[in-house]
Amino acid sequence: MSRETDDLADIADNARAPAAEEDLEDLALGEDYALNPDYVPLVADALDRGDAERLRDLLSALRPEDVADLMGFLSAKDREELLPHLDPETLGDVLSELDTEIREDVLEHVPSATLAKALEEMESDDAADVVDDLEEDKRAQVLAAMPEVERAAIETTLAYDEETAGRLMQREVVAAPQFWTVGQTIDHLRRESEALPELFFDVYVVDPAYKPVGAAPVSHLLRTKRDTPLAQIMEPVTEIPVDMDQEEVAYIFNKYNLISAPVVEPGGRLVGQITVDDIVGVIQEESEEDILALANVSDAGRDAGMFGIVRSRLMWLILNLATEAIAVSAIAVYQDEVAKITALAVLMPIVSSVGGNAGTQTLAVAVRALASREMNASNAARIFWREMGAGIVNGLIVALAMGLAVTVIYHQRWEFAVRLALTVGLALVANIFTAAVGGILVPLFLERTGRDPAVSSSIFITFLTDFMGFFAVLAIAALILL
Amino acid sequence: MSRETDDLADIADNARAPAAEEDLEDLALGEDYALNPDYVPLVADALDRGDAERLRDLLSALRPEDVADLMGFLSAKDREELLPHLDPETLGDVLSELDTEIREDVLEHVPSATLAKALEEMESDDAADVVDDLEEDKRAQVLAAMPEVERAAIETTLAYDEETAGRLMQREVVAAPQFWTVGQTIDHLRRESEALPELFFDVYVVDPAYKPVGAAPVSHLLRTKRDTPLAQIMEPVTEIPVDMDQEEVAYIFNKYNLISAPVVEPGGRLVGQITVDDIVGVIQEESEEDILALANVSDAGRDAGMFGIVRSRLMWLILNLATEAIAVSAIAVYQDEVAKITALAVLMPIVSSVGGNAGTQTLAVAVRALASREMNASNAARIFWREMGAGIVNGLIVALAMGLAVTVIYHQRWEFAVRLALTVGLALVANIFTAAVGGILVPLFLERTGRDPAVSSSIFITFLTDFMGFFAVLAIAALILL
Repeated sequence: MSRETDDLADIADNARAPAAEEDLEDLALGEDYALNPDYVPLVADALDRGDAERLRDLLSALRPEDVADLMGFLSAKDREELLPHLDPETLGDVLSELDTEIREDVLEHVPSATLAKALEEMESDDAADVVDDLEEDKRAQVLAAMPEVERAAIETTLAYDEETAGRLMQREVVAAPQFWTVGQTIDHLRRESEALPELFFDVYVVDPAYKPVGAAPVSHLLRTKRDTPLAQIMEPVTEIPVDMDQEEVAYIFNKYNLISAPVVEPGGRLVGQITVDDIVGVIQEESEEDILALANVSDAGRDAGMFGIVRSRLMWLILNLATEAIAVSAIAVYQDEVAKITALAVLMPIVSSVGGNAGTQTLAVAVRALASREMNASNAARIFWREMGAGIVNGLIVALAMGLAVTVIYHQRWEFAVRLALTVGLALVANIFTAAVGGILVPLFLERTGRDPAVSSSIFITFLTDFMGFFAVLAIAALILL
Repeated sequence: MSRETDDLADIADNARAPAAEEDLEDLALGEDYALNPDYVPLVADALDRGDAERLRDLLSALRPEDVADLMGFLSAKDREELLPHLDPETLGDVLSELDTEIREDVLEHVPSATLAKALEEMESDDAADVVDDLEEDKRAQVLAAMPEVERAAIETTLAYDEETAGRLMQREVVAAPQFWTVGQTIDHLRRESEALPELFFDVYVVDPAYKPVGAAPVSHLLRTKRDTPLAQIMEPVTEIPVDMDQEEVAYIFNKYNLISAPVVEPGGRLVGQITVDDIVGVIQEESEEDILALANVSDAGRDAGMFGIVRSRLMWLILNLATEAIAVSAIAVYQDEVAKITALAVLMPIVSSVGGNAGTQTLAVAVRALASREMNASNAARIFWREMGAGIVNGLIVALAMGLAVTVIYHQRWEFAVRLALTVGLALVANIFTAAVGGILVPLFLERTGRDPAVSSSIFITFLTDFMGFFAVLAIAALILL
């Protein structure tokens, strides 16, 4: 540890010399462009010493995305102290990259006037996201401090429901009438250069009612002769309705490998565009939601603090406690059997646990297949039967292994050993089969009834396989063992 | 069911009339552009009847991506029969969209000459992916049937390791020397139009050694005056080393919201580019791997068949059986206690199950935080202590709930009830705390030792919390209950 500290001190000394600015950039990021963990204490240290010059050097080696990462690793206090050292443009870029939890915290400490300036620099969708995180009072203050046009754009975006295309899209688009040529379009772009979005990938070709009829990829515009009509090089567009759920938008982008797509109002009028970089975030978010939901965690963000964590998990633990109380009622009913043959109390949990594992396996595969639209009404039956078959085969093999082990362990009481092996073996087959049925039917049922198949399904599968594990062992034991 | 069949028959009749082609397109996809489940039996039916004309109509309503989806829902036999109805270009597009399992199956049924033609139509990275899936003999045949240039491109791509930037990249890039103007660049693009990649988003500006020194986004080229030097509008590039792991590439694209990035050889020479649409696939793949790994499934693909499923899960079930056998040894040691107080056999599984749930929660959060680089050496300690704190708080609350329930249920034997409540309550606190410690340390340990933190960690956490659940209840019972 002290060796490491020495190294850091050396690096810090070197970095103070102006010639070492390049070194600071090398130190800031790892080879994979992730923020170097060693860089965080350097910043924290400069903040503690209130060394503004050093901070400026340290920050200038970072891009806004790296500063956002840095904030995630700093303590809340350090984060707050860092804020005044960011200019409005950088602040805007940093804000669009921050996780919600951290952003809410940061926003409380930025003066309204500074925030209004930062928002002006941002694209309408990103700015709206930030404004959405503000508390009522501050939101009014900040919006009042902004120019009319930018304020209106933000308010229009916020009028769409959360997690819809309307929220994801940027209102800035490049459109051209279908009778224009490539040359006319390029001349227009050069003239209007100032008003264009920072980056764009398609020029949308629109009819007189401003409905998109095609898209001309910019790389096609660039390589086509000036006198070619747009209508000749345009490609069909995949229109996104403004009220479409973001998960569906992500599915469409992924399916058709889209880079950008026009967003249209119910009448078909072009109102904005969604670009693939916004979609990458949505895909991450949605799959993260699935991972956490399957593990019974309500998302709390990484900076939720201890009580945020408690809140995101406690409800599920209590629910698990309640369902388990029902599951163990199977044991309560057969207490006499357990008292007589305590081997049952030893072996029962194995049957439950392996069944639970099998259920989780099927569940994860089913949830994933539903999310990627790989399972639907046309193949659900086939997948169901395949799972059943696999459940029986796996059940038989695992049961055989467990039965053999039990026979060997209790071999001194031969007949008892065989009957006990038969008991747990049969119970295991029954439970792994139950796991397969539940693991596929529960998410399908949730999906059909319009719910998220990942949420709460694992609690139910755990209950099912625990109950079945206890009940099957004890009921079979009551029949053939006593 | 029969009602539905009638409807389908009606639709099918309508569709046969040429005027109904539009209807067929409406029927093909749902509102979210997912393949309509009702469409699959229409295709299967046409295949069974060998109705080539009907098939052509049905297929013409689909884009290649939809045909790939369709193949996933068809039986292996129907899939094979569908193949001759696809032209080489469509076949190429379909092949790049298919899941590996299905693709391997499909490739066996495509004649080498047809395949060679389809590969010529594809981009080098997609073509290489397909060739990689071919069996040795067929690969040689297909490559021999291809023109020299395309064959060389595929062979060069395949020389890079799987899941690296070299495999992901397309070799086709657009580069320009830094002394060119915007006008010169556009003229060059118009002249070389034929040789350019189908879509591109950046012109890479290179020095005489062909090292990228910047990138000019095509939308900037379009809106800038012809006499502007490239050097003036170019932006800094984020170079991707050709041997970088695809997970790191995805992280970089996501972090910096990149649309495309140049890929460079160790010396710094430009050798290709990666575009964001390739990355969307990688992100899906990696998060899917995490979901499945946490659920103890080795990926088997959706068309793995029953024995594929068995293979992908059996090993984990056997491992679970083995670890559980160790966990229940805690019960075996205390069999006399269980025989005396069967309430322990009833309550023990609850303590184990809730602990297991708490462990899974922490584990999922930790795996996710590691994958998104939100947890590293600089904040691991803080996250650890926060988890410990949350574990104790959750443990105390859940223990209180369980303790109260136990006291109420056994209230007729008052003193016993209180001692039993204390036993399970203490055990529950201990187990949820253990779950928090294990849930964070196990993935951290796996990551530090260069392994995937998602693989095998949940088996270990289950073992830990089951063992602790049994042991804590019984050991505390032995102390204060007997």
